[in-house]
Amino acid sequence: MKYLDKLNKIISTNNSLLCVGLDPDLSKFPKHLINKSDPFFSFNKLIIDSTYDLVCAFKPNIAFYEAEGVKGITSLKKTIDYIKEKYPFVPVILDSKRSDIGNTSSFYAKAMFEYFNADATTVNPLGGFETIEPFLKYTDRGIICWCKSSNPGAGEFQDLTVNRKPLYITIAEKIAKLSKAYPNLSMFFGATWPDQLKDARKLVPHMSILVPGVGSQGADVEKLIKAGLTKDKKGLIVNVGRAIIYPSINRDFANQARALSIKMRNEINSFR
Amino acid sequence: MKYLDKLNKIISTNNSLLCVGLDPDLSKFPKHLINKSDPFFSFNKLIIDSTYDLVCAFKPNIAFYEAEGVKGITSLKKTIDYIKEKYPFVPVILDSKRSDIGNTSSFYAKAMFEYFNADATTVNPLGGFETIEPFLKYTDRGIICWCKSSNPGAGEFQDLTVNRKPLYITIAEKIAKLSKAYPNLSMFFGATWPDQLKDARKLVPHMSILVPGVGSQGADVEKLIKAGLTKDKKGLIVNVGRAIIYPSINRDFANQARALSIKMRNEINSFR
Repeated sequence: MKYLDKLNKIISTNNSLLCVGLDPDLSKFPKHLINKSDPFFSFNKLIIDSTYDLVCAFKPNIAFYEAEGVKGITSLKKTIDYIKEKYPFVPVILDSKRSDIGNTSSFYAKAMFEYFNADATTVNPLGGFETIEPFLKYTDRGIICWCKSSNPGAGEFQDLTVNRKPLYITIAEKIAKLSKAYPNLSMFFGATWPDQLKDARKLVPHMSILVPGVGSQGADVEKLIKAGLTKDKKGLIVNVGRAIIYPSINRDFANQARALSIKMRNEINSFR
Repeated sequence: MKYLDKLNKIISTNNSLLCVGLDPDLSKFPKHLINKSDPFFSFNKLIIDSTYDLVCAFKPNIAFYEAEGVKGITSLKKTIDYIKEKYPFVPVILDSKRSDIGNTSSFYAKAMFEYFNADATTVNPLGGFETIEPFLKYTDRGIICWCKSSNPGAGEFQDLTVNRKPLYITIAEKIAKLSKAYPNLSMFFGATWPDQLKDARKLVPHMSILVPGVGSQGADVEKLIKAGLTKDKKGLIVNVGRAIIYPSINRDFANQARALSIKMRNEINSFR
């Protein structure tokens, strides 16, 4: 099934816009998992099994796996395979924000969509949209393009004025235009900037937007949902990582993560 | 030894500004290597052994390895370990153009500098310089920041006018400013834009600049060297990938690659 169809279906089935970030960090791990043979996979499996019916997607960020080298990449592949096997209805967004030029870019696309078999991935548009085209050719997958990031210093370049508008609006306009030819293109926008998201939303009234920044980064859920929701009360993938997956270092952390996911899903839904 | 010291030393020892790109692509491989147990490493080893005394750096682009998953990452690690062991005087620039926000960025830095143990890596500044800080903390390594890319469509965002200057000049100004606090920060600039490189060079008169785009991408070597050289006739790392490493699919391809490297080194030097 195409990424967007899968996404829209599960948003209805699970009645959820919550995406859980699978970002394993050993320094925050429950003690009993640290000495497992594959602690990342053991951790992810417990989080996945206890939240799969509450989410609209899982989003592993590849940085956390890459830092552990071959071992980490093995865990990531195993994690995605596990989701595909056991919960094939939950889309996997492999957050990688890759950026390189033509020939090289096609190898990144191969990595994300063929090797890891992700349903969607994130990309960085600084090289121009021609650098994203090798990804867009995978018409059944989702390509989520960085428009504005959630970090406090995001504006250093993204807010610079270009033609009397901030750069991120120019990026959003290009995403809007290109998405007519490539409906598999969508947008990545920091949840920490609800007013700016409102402006971007006007340019892409029906597009699914990945919004990270709720939880540890402190984005306001009410403002976010009101700013970004589409008319059919969908169109947002609200990623929460650390604030859900690291509730404690106790044995029952996954149950606590489930409780936090229910709470977050309901909070999001209360503003839909 | 610090990356920049290592780089400046080998530029003198090997009398070279040539960097060889280690970008393994099975579809272009010599036939006799395809069925080896680790074709990427076998290929790289032959290229490295036949060019180490002609280059100022080796630059593997991680995309090519990532596309092969765990196998590729294993080959990349083995390749870097081999260079570090056998030719420790040749810096390894791991081209990855990573980009993500604070906490995540530090995991990418860990991957490049701790797991792979690269001497330098490339980064993408779209998230603002705060996203690059976790890399800059590795003061003995080189952080090479994307300023302008070599692809034909590079200008889509990089040439947009910001304060009456193209965006890439704003990025170059920020690199210039930040490099006062972080001398390990340098610049990535497409060799295909010599006139624009001349403008960027004025802002960073002494900085080492990685310039990809010679060879398959067709950059003019004379124009490039004249535009980018520092007063002491250094300051450029001229990367050539495909045009050197894939001279043929014959058994003696590495000797041919050596001949092409000599030719390219000499051509570059003829304009110094």
